[in-house]
Parts: sequence; C-alpha cells; structure tokens
Amino acid sequence: MELLRSGEGFQLFYEGREIINHSYKSPFIFAGIGEASYDMYRGNFEITNEISEKMALSNFQIHEKQDELEIDFSRNGLFNIKVKIFVEENLLKIKFSSNEKDINRVWIRIKGNEKEHLYGCGEQFSHFDLKGKIVPLWVSEQGVGRNKKTYETFMADVEDRAGGDQFTTFYPQPTFVSSNKYFLHVKDSSYMKFDFSKNEYHQLEIWNIPEEIVIGVGENYIELLKILTDFFGRQPELPFWVYDGVWLGVQGGTDVVLKKLKAAEDKGVKVGALWAQDWEGKRVTSFGKRLIWNWVWHEELYPGLDKEIPKLNEKGVKFLGYINPYLSAGGSLFIEAESLGYLVKNVEGKDYLIDAGEFDIGIVDITNPKGFEWYKGVIRKYMIDFGLSGWMADFGEYLPTDAVLHNGLSGELMHNLWPTLWAKVNRQAIEDAGKLGEIVFFMRSGYAGSSKYNTMAWAGDQNVNWELDDGLPSVIPAALSLGMSGMGLSHSDIGGYTTLFGMKRTKELFIRWAEQAAFTPMMRTHEGNRPDDNWQFDSDEETLEYLARMNNIFMLLAPYTKSIVKENSDNGTPTMRPLFLHYENDEKSYDIQYQYLYGKDIMVAPVIEDKVRSWKLYLPEDNWVNIWTGEEFKGGEIQVNAELGYPPVLYRKDSNFKELFEKITKEYGYN
Amino acid sequence: MELLRSGEGFQLFYEGREIINHSYKSPFIFAGIGEASYDMYRGNFEITNEISEKMALSNFQIHEKQDELEIDFSRNGLFNIKVKIFVEENLLKIKFSSNEKDINRVWIRIKGNEKEHLYGCGEQFSHFDLKGKIVPLWVSEQGVGRNKKTYETFMADVEDRAGGDQFTTFYPQPTFVSSNKYFLHVKDSSYMKFDFSKNEYHQLEIWNIPEEIVIGVGENYIELLKILTDFFGRQPELPFWVYDGVWLGVQGGTDVVLKKLKAAEDKGVKVGALWAQDWEGKRVTSFGKRLIWNWVWHEELYPGLDKEIPKLNEKGVKFLGYINPYLSAGGSLFIEAESLGYLVKNVEGKDYLIDAGEFDIGIVDITNPKGFEWYKGVIRKYMIDFGLSGWMADFGEYLPTDAVLHNGLSGELMHNLWPTLWAKVNRQAIEDAGKLGEIVFFMRSGYAGSSKYNTMAWAGDQNVNWELDDGLPSVIPAALSLGMSGMGLSHSDIGGYTTLFGMKRTKELFIRWAEQAAFTPMMRTHEGNRPDDNWQFDSDEETLEYLARMNNIFMLLAPYTKSIVKENSDNGTPTMRPLFLHYENDEKSYDIQYQYLYGKDIMVAPVIEDKVRSWKLYLPEDNWVNIWTGEEFKGGEIQVNAELGYPPVLYRKDSNFKELFEKITKEYGYN
Repeated sequence: MELLRSGEGFQLFYEGREIINHSYKSPFIFAGIGEASYDMYRGNFEITNEISEKMALSNFQIHEKQDELEIDFSRNGLFNIKVKIFVEENLLKIKFSSNEKDINRVWIRIKGNEKEHLYGCGEQFSHFDLKGKIVPLWVSEQGVGRNKKTYETFMADVEDRAGGDQFTTFYPQPTFVSSNKYFLHVKDSSYMKFDFSKNEYHQLEIWNIPEEIVIGVGENYIELLKILTDFFGRQPELPFWVYDGVWLGVQGGTDVVLKKLKAAEDKGVKVGALWAQDWEGKRVTSFGKRLIWNWVWHEELYPGLDKEIPKLNEKGVKFLGYINPYLSAGGSLFIEAESLGYLVKNVEGKDYLIDAGEFDIGIVDITNPKGFEWYKGVIRKYMIDFGLSGWMADFGEYLPTDAVLHNGLSGELMHNLWPTLWAKVNRQAIEDAGKLGEIVFFMRSGYAGSSKYNTMAWAGDQNVNWELDDGLPSVIPAALSLGMSGMGLSHSDIGGYTTLFGMKRTKELFIRWAEQAAFTPMMRTHEGNRPDDNWQFDSDEETLEYLARMNNIFMLLAPYTKSIVKENSDNGTPTMRPLFLHYENDEKSYDIQYQYLYGKDIMVAPVIEDKVRSWKLYLPEDNWVNIWTGEEFKGGEIQVNAELGYPPVLYRKDSNFKELFEKITKEYGYN
Repeated sequence: MELLRSGEGFQLFYEGREIINHSYKSPFIFAGIGEASYDMYRGNFEITNEISEKMALSNFQIHEKQDELEIDFSRNGLFNIKVKIFVEENLLKIKFSSNEKDINRVWIRIKGNEKEHLYGCGEQFSHFDLKGKIVPLWVSEQGVGRNKKTYETFMADVEDRAGGDQFTTFYPQPTFVSSNKYFLHVKDSSYMKFDFSKNEYHQLEIWNIPEEIVIGVGENYIELLKILTDFFGRQPELPFWVYDGVWLGVQGGTDVVLKKLKAAEDKGVKVGALWAQDWEGKRVTSFGKRLIWNWVWHEELYPGLDKEIPKLNEKGVKFLGYINPYLSAGGSLFIEAESLGYLVKNVEGKDYLIDAGEFDIGIVDITNPKGFEWYKGVIRKYMIDFGLSGWMADFGEYLPTDAVLHNGLSGELMHNLWPTLWAKVNRQAIEDAGKLGEIVFFMRSGYAGSSKYNTMAWAGDQNVNWELDDGLPSVIPAALSLGMSGMGLSHSDIGGYTTLFGMKRTKELFIRWAEQAAFTPMMRTHEGNRPDDNWQFDSDEETLEYLARMNNIFMLLAPYTKSIVKENSDNGTPTMRPLFLHYENDEKSYDIQYQYLYGKDIMVAPVIEDKVRSWKLYLPEDNWVNIWTGEEFKGGEIQVNAELGYPPVLYRKDSNFKELFEKITKEYGYN
C-alpha cells in the first residue's frame, strides 16, 4: 500500500488502485447515532432509520508504523474512530475501533470513478451492474414481482406486504467487485446500504462499527475470483448423478409421484431424481398448498416410501426431500425442541412463535451448540439415514430482530447471519455422515459465508411469468451476481414458483425455462404454489418431449459441466459467467445481464420473452459456432433463429470440448 | 415567559405551557448540512434529502437580558446557532441566526405529551388530528387516491407518478394548533417536516435556518383562533349572492350553458351563478378535456357572451370564469409576457417551459413587481372589466425548484410561497377595481399567508368516489384543518372531479355530495375531467329535484350562513368547525373528523358511504334537535335515518336561529 499526503487530506493506494481519498470536504468516514425499527411480516421488512447525529470525521492523525498505518479520525475531537490499515495474506485490511459506545452508524467512502462497473452484493435479481444503484443488504423474502409498477407487486403489497422491490433478496452479501479489479468486503452482519450512485465515491452505510473491511486485487477477473473465494470458501464438486437427468419436482404421495415418474420415463425423459417437498406432509392455505414443517417421513401420504427409495436408487433415480430451519408449533419435533429449550426466545423469555402464513412456527436456536447438534441429528436421523439423497434447505430469512439468542448476540446482528448458520447445519450433517459429494442440498437464502457451506444455490421463488424483475429473466443476473460474490453453483425452479393474482404458468414459459436450465449445473422442475393453475411438465405430450430433448442435451453436456463445476471448486470461477470474465477488454461485455458464458466455451442467450422465435445476442471477438446450425461467427451483434427447443447457444470453435458440441449439433441441431 | 434551569439543561414556559425542554440527551435544536433533490412531474414531487452532517446542539449558554433571552447553542463549539426569545404583541417569538453559512438543516424539538391532539398544517385530507403522524409541508398536487393501497393510486403512480399519499396537499402550512391551546408557526418557506410521532416532543425538521418561530396562546380555542388569525389575516365576508343559489359548473359554449341553466331553472333550481371554466376555450388531452390557458374570452366557443352576462346578472345569475398562474406557450398573453420579459427563467436564462400534461406553459414571474402589475392588469382587463363576477384561481403548485426569479430568491424557497403570491395577485386585482366584497375568487393551492388574500378555498380535485383519502369524505378533514390554520371559508366540487382508471361518478355520490355542500358557505357543481363518464346534475329529473331541494335549504340558511361567515371575518372562527371548538371538555370530540359543527348551532354528519340510509353520529352534551324530524337529543352516540336528501343534521335548541331551523323542519322535514 502507498500513502500520499496532501494539504488537507490523504490518498491511500493498494496495488495501484486508489482506495481512499480523504479530504475535509469529502472525508473517508462519517460516524453517527441512529435508531432503527424493523417491522417484519412473513419475511418482508419495513425498516426505518432515525439518525440523531452524523458527523464528518474530517480531522485525522496518521501514525505510520512498520507495515501498518494507524489513523485516528474525529470531528474536532468528537466521535473518535481508530482505523488500522495493513496487508495480511495478500489482502488489504482496514480495521475499525472506537471507545465511544454510542456510535452505531458509520458511512465509509471508497474512491470511485465514472467508468467503473460494480458487481456482486450477493444475489441481485434486477440489476447485475450496480453502478448508479443504492443497494440495501438485508436478508428477506425476495418479493412478488419486485417492481412497484406491476399489478402483481401492487396486489402482493396490499394483501401481504409482500411485493418487494428491485433490491429485495434472499441472499445479499456486503461484498462487491469493481471493474478496477478489486473486491471489497465489509466484515459485519448489521444492516448495510451500499450507495453506488456517485461517481467520486462508493458510500458504504453500516449500522454498526464494522470489524473490518477486506480488499483483494487480481490481475484479471479469474484471479480476482480465486482470491475472493480463497477468502470466503468455495463449493465442493457435485456428485455425477446431478448431471445425469432432470429432477422432477413432484408431490402428492407415493402413488402419484411414481406415476409421474413413469409418465416421464415413458416419454423418454431420463429422470435423475424425484424431489418431493411434501415427503413430510402437506396442508392447504389461502396461498396454496403448504407443507407440514415437521421433518419426518409422512407415512400416510407416502406409504412404503422407505422401501421405494432403495428400489428407485437401484435404477438410477434419487429421492430428495425438504426441510427448513423452523418447526411447526405442536409438531413432534417442535415439542422435542421446546422441551429441550432449543427454540429461539422472545424478549419475555418465551418461545418466539412467528406467523409463517396461517400457521405458527418456532425457530431452532442454532446459535446454541446443543441446538445446532440436535438439529443436525434431526437431519441425520430422519433424512440422511432414511435414504434421501438431498433436499431443499428452504428459508432462513425470518429471524426477528428482537429475537433472544443463546449466543447473546442481538437478533438484529444475527438476522443476516442466519442463512449462513442454516447452511452450516445442513453441510455438517452431511459431512458427519461422510456423504459430502454424494448428497446435495440447495438453498435460496444466504449471506457472507454461505458459499463455504451451501452445496448449491437456487434462485428462490420466481413468478411464473416473463417479468424482468421476478420472472424467467431475473434468474440470469441472479446467477451472475452470485458468481461474482463467490457462489458459483446455482439453478432455478423450471417454470417458476409464485402463482398468484391471476398469474398462470404457460406452456411456452415452461419450455423456455427448461431451455435455460439445460445450461446450468442442475435441472429441476417445480409445480409452483398453486400446481393446478400452472402448466406442468406432464400437462401434454409435447411438453414432455421438449423436456426430454433439453434433458438429453443437458446429459450430453455432463463431462463439460463436470469440468466447469470443478473449475468452480478449484478456483472459484463460477459455472455461469458474465462475458467480461473472459473478454475483459470488450467494453460492451460489461453491460450484459441476460446472456452468459456457461463455462469458458458456451455462450447462452436464453429467450426470455413470450412468443418470439428469433433472438438477438452479442458475441465478443472470438470464433463462435451456433450449436444448432454449425454456422460460424467472429463476434458482434447477431440475430439467430430461436424455435422452441433451440435456445440461442454458441460454442467456441477452439474449445477442448468441440467434439462433444459437434455431437449435439449432429443429434439435436436443425435439419 | 419563564425559564427554569436544571443541572444539564433548561425548560422554557410561556403562559403556563412548557415549550422547550432542553437536555443533553434530547436537545432543543439539532443542526446539519443536507442536499435535496426535487424531481417534479406535473406538480408531483419526488424529493430526496442527503444529510452529510447532523449535530445535536447540546451545549448552550444563556444570556438573560431585559425582556429577552439569548441562548447560544453549539456542539462543542461546532455548528453555532444563536436563539433569541422574547414576547412581542402577545406572541412568543423565537428567532434564529447563525454565522455558519453551511448549515441548511435544523431540527427543533417542542415539548409534547402523550394526550396532546394536534391540528392544522394547512389542508389535510386524510388526518385531522395529526398526533402520531409525520407531516411533510410542501406545496404539490394532492394526488389521485392518495393511498398506495388503492388501485386508482397505483394506476396514477404508474402512468403519471400522480398517486400522492395521505399527506400530499395543495395547501400545506407550517402552523399547528395544540390541544394545550397554543398555536405554533414556523416563519420560513423551505421544505419542512413536522414529526408528531413522539410523545415527548414534536420535531420540526426545517431545510433552512428559519427566521423565527411564533407561538400564541388562548384561553379557549375561539380566542386562540382569533389570535392566530390576527397574526395571519382573515378572509372578508362573502357577497350575499353567494348564498343565493347554487353555482353550476358548466361548459361547452354559450348555447350549451344557457340550455343547462334553463333545464335547471325549469326544475326549480335557483341558480346563483354559471361557472364556465372554458370561457377561454378548451382542448382535448388523454386526461380529458383541458383548457386553453390564455386568459381572454374565447369568442368562437362563447359567441355573444359579452352581451349575455349583463342579461344574466339582471335576472340574478352571475357568470364566473377561470384563470391560473400559467400561460400556454404560443398564446397571445404568453407572447406578450415573453416579449416584456415577465416569464420565470430557467438556469440558462431562457423562459422556463413546463409540461402541464401534453402542452407546455410559461409561468408569469410575479416576484417581479412589473410582472405582478401586468398580470393584475390581465385579470382586470379580460376578466373583471369583461363582467365576470369571480373565477377559479387554479393551480399554484408547479414552480420548479430550479426556477430563476426576479426577486433573486431560489425556486426552492419560493416554491411554497407561490400560492400566497398567486392569491395576492387575484386579491389586489379585485381591490384595485374596488370590487372586494362583490367578486369572489376561489383557490385550491395555499401556504402561510394565503388566508389573508384568498377569498375562498376549494378542496381541489377529489376522486368521484367514496374513498376516505380522496373521495367525498376527505373534504371534511380538509375544511376542518384549513379552519385550524386560519382559512375559515372553504367548499368543494359537488360530485368530485377526477374521473380516471374506471372511476365514474354515480347518482348517489352526486346527491350525497350536494347534501354536504348545502352546509358549507358555497354550493358549486363540477362536471369533472371526463364529463361524459360522470353522473351530472342534469343527468335525470330526480337529480335536479334533489339538487333543488338542497339548494333551497342552503338558501333558507343564508342569514345563518352570513352570520357565521361574519364570525370568521371578525374573529377567525371558521364556518366549518371541529366539535371541540365549542365543547372543549368533551374528550371524544377531539377524535371526530367526518362530522362538524356548521357555525355554533348546526351539527352536520354527512353520509359518506354508498347505499346506506341510516347513520351514526356523536353529540356532545347539549340540547339538540333533528332538523328533519324535530326529535330532541341530549348528547351521546345516536343513530338517525338518512334517506337521500336528508343528511344527518341537528341544530341547537337554544340557537338564536331556532325559528329559521324550525321553518326548514316544517318545509323540508320528513313528510
């Protein structure tokens, strides 16, 4: 690092990047006192923040020590904050401390510039490049529609306060990647807001004095993501069975799911797994069919399942279930956790019951090591030992800010960490059983640290439509921003999930979604919250044929997919990649958020509009081949045919997997 | 005033009311630096405020002088603000000054308490008692629907950013009346926000260092409003012709309006005036029929109007027009003002053209004394001398914050003052013609000072429906809050105005609105922005009969109305009064906002719901008589019949106007 003093301020550089530009007028740090209120309704938050004081810490005193800078900031002696800056394991670290206990808000300004692009912040569904945006970082429901100009969001807001906005997300993370090729992470779990709306600086608002800011740099994005994931941890490789057929999201009991399996197989669909979220039973609410939330096999709904699973496994079909961090009040596990004192408490010291939508739930206190062990035991006993090959580890966003926890931290500070802890429970349960690399769980919620534990992200609950902010298109920026945050494995519900306010999944949406899913590491269907309103994989024969086609292509790609998943495990290079990752000198590639590289060699431009059969996409300069026609391109904007079943996909002519791609052209191309 | 010092702070009392309670933890004043952005679209504002510093001015030094306190506030020597407190003409004045030019935000805490009620703040459509609310004070369009949970507001927001919310208003005023029987006014025109959500204090956020705060006290509310209107100025009495028949809002040209007059008269409707907003021509936009905005008689649309007006006047029918502070680009008046240099300029020094909804307008710069005189001349020449007996002086909310004005003040600071200045132009034009007390203009926009110039307020553009926030009900709290702010004369469009997004005025709504209007100082109909979608006074014979009935009752009340209008002119006691004005010991009376006293002797509880024929109302302890039945009540909650044409109305048995009321019972009571 390099320090440059000027008359009234200073600049700090790290590996040639200007990080701090402190002046009297635009100080590096502001400090203040605020009071927040968090109003949660079923995972949706209304948050207010009253600032009683905010001071620009213009005054500073630098103490240069060996390998370390120590800077005392204040405002004329008020609001003292000590900052230590040093390099440790190739990372720049900026540590904060203060003796003043009142201070609970800081605003930090990191040097920015006009042409910068900014990515990451966890899973962002509406905007990939965050330049110009103000990004709140708070774990919550993602919202329905996520756009105040849509009817669905309006209705969801009116009926359930559930509409969300373009920045509500299950999986935020206080980490961004700058096109100046550095990443910055704020090590803290309080509510934050990253303001990228200014050219001169990025203002990081943090509702706490953070422990530290960590900055890493890379010569290129691949190296940068390697350094980023060295810091956060990476996901292990997936078992090969994940690439060997589509997972059918089915429910309704043993007979029903077996019938659905047969119907699919009869039409040539190779099924990799049956995923039955209602393996533990179901209930009906006004939202649609919901689950029992007591994580034991529901024998009445799934008679003989214990015998069926081994049979299915033998013929190459896995069986997966569902769990979340909550227990339905009155259920057997709830009663057990309650009696053991393992439930999260409210301020009165009683078990904290929250409304999950027409039924109450308790939260297992996984900050209590005994509670953590107990819940791991639940997973081991009722899921792993029962024979499940994986599960959706749902939710994680509903920890109330006034919860009283065993570890003594406030609900406000634990709220964002809950998804990470929840991922850790699942991961360790699998590791303890010695089944890492065999069993897969997948999660929607997340925060810093999740990428170390979670084996696979899923994009949550999209609307069953084409809306940019919450329909099929949104899963692409979601995957790309996750990738830039260190979570390189993700997929989404084929066909979307949320089916409310007149929405109904169409046949074309289902097919287009399946097309896109074939170019992710995992294909999984979902019936949605109101299955009867939605087009399903077995709603007609043609749909089954399209699904079989995309699934066959997905299976053919398995060696390639396996190799790029390994790249993610080894180096943190995500499977779904923004174009600039491999074409960093192509300025246009920085603005693209509905097209991606699947690995280095495949360009995917999913059709995300209804009723179109031709699609425009952008190619950086390289030798590209249309996988369905063999037609070659050198780069630039091109228009391609995009009949159903033929999503715009090109591969690099120089790829090591060229033969594999040519096989796809031969077997599945236009002719 | 009385000062009480304590260890770390002080208290200030005025006439027994605790006004200031300064302590280190909760100081009287905070100061800061902020930057606002105002994004205006057709009179609707999106306002953001970035605070870079905010300091609690905990440190203070009191200098006690003769008849004056001088207090120097600061935060450890930073952000110095000097406050002088003294009594002048029975008002407590708190003056502010500072040498620090950066300071442009202050937050002032006035002592509050849990049981307090708070009223005023100009015209408030959704909430009369503002306790618990946060009230922004910024002149703007009132909004369509004004409630984010309604479909109309959603659509207006999506299509035009025009939905508004429960606090958007044409006529805000930084003045409130506390149930501790004092009023407080902040003398400043910047954006403000009065936060009444705390029990301990009312926090006044002011985007400027205000000149002063003025506080007056009264033994009772009648006296308090006298003192308040001594300070702000009161409205003159209305000419008697205002009480002598309904004003028909008509348009479409000479023939059409005369035909409508005849149709009404044929059905026994005594018409006091024809009010033709399109006297200067009309245009059609997607919003509906709009006007030309060039304030001269449109001879093509109104042939022979110059001859018709005297004839109408002779038979007791006045003729009224319309004007606003803007000139349609390209019109004759625009061209004249442009050539004289009387238009408001933009930052480039060019005439500031703004979008009024599919056509552009210029704004006459009435901060320029010559522009002011010229516009007065326009009113005199084209309206008064032409023979108009009054007009709607519309708008006043669209001054852009970046406007460049002749008087050198910023658009930001002049924006809120524009309605006052606009009222002054109209008032002086009438006074110059020697016609005050003969001619009436009526305005929707307003601010502190308006009540001195405006001859009559009108509640603006309600939706043609029953919605609490923007339909018929909303005009009642609007009138009551105006009354508590010093504007004691107001009325509304009978039937409402805004007809969009599927809204259509029904017959019943029109009739119920006419019922309410009969108990205000003025009855005036409006066709709405889309007349063809609305039920009109002449849509069927029965409607004309109902209108005639309510109009007859209104005319019978004329002596009473005249007397209460005089009370307003003499003492500032508004015509439409909250119940507590005369029953201050009745705790229940403080919570009522959809019922009012019309003068001291008439209790009005308008039916504000569709399809009901019975109504519940509350009576403070007194001797009350149902005006339609003669039935007597002593007080409490009662349920009365409320057939169409019989709005729940009671009078005080001890009233001096008892005979008049008995006449109404006899002639218009049930059977």
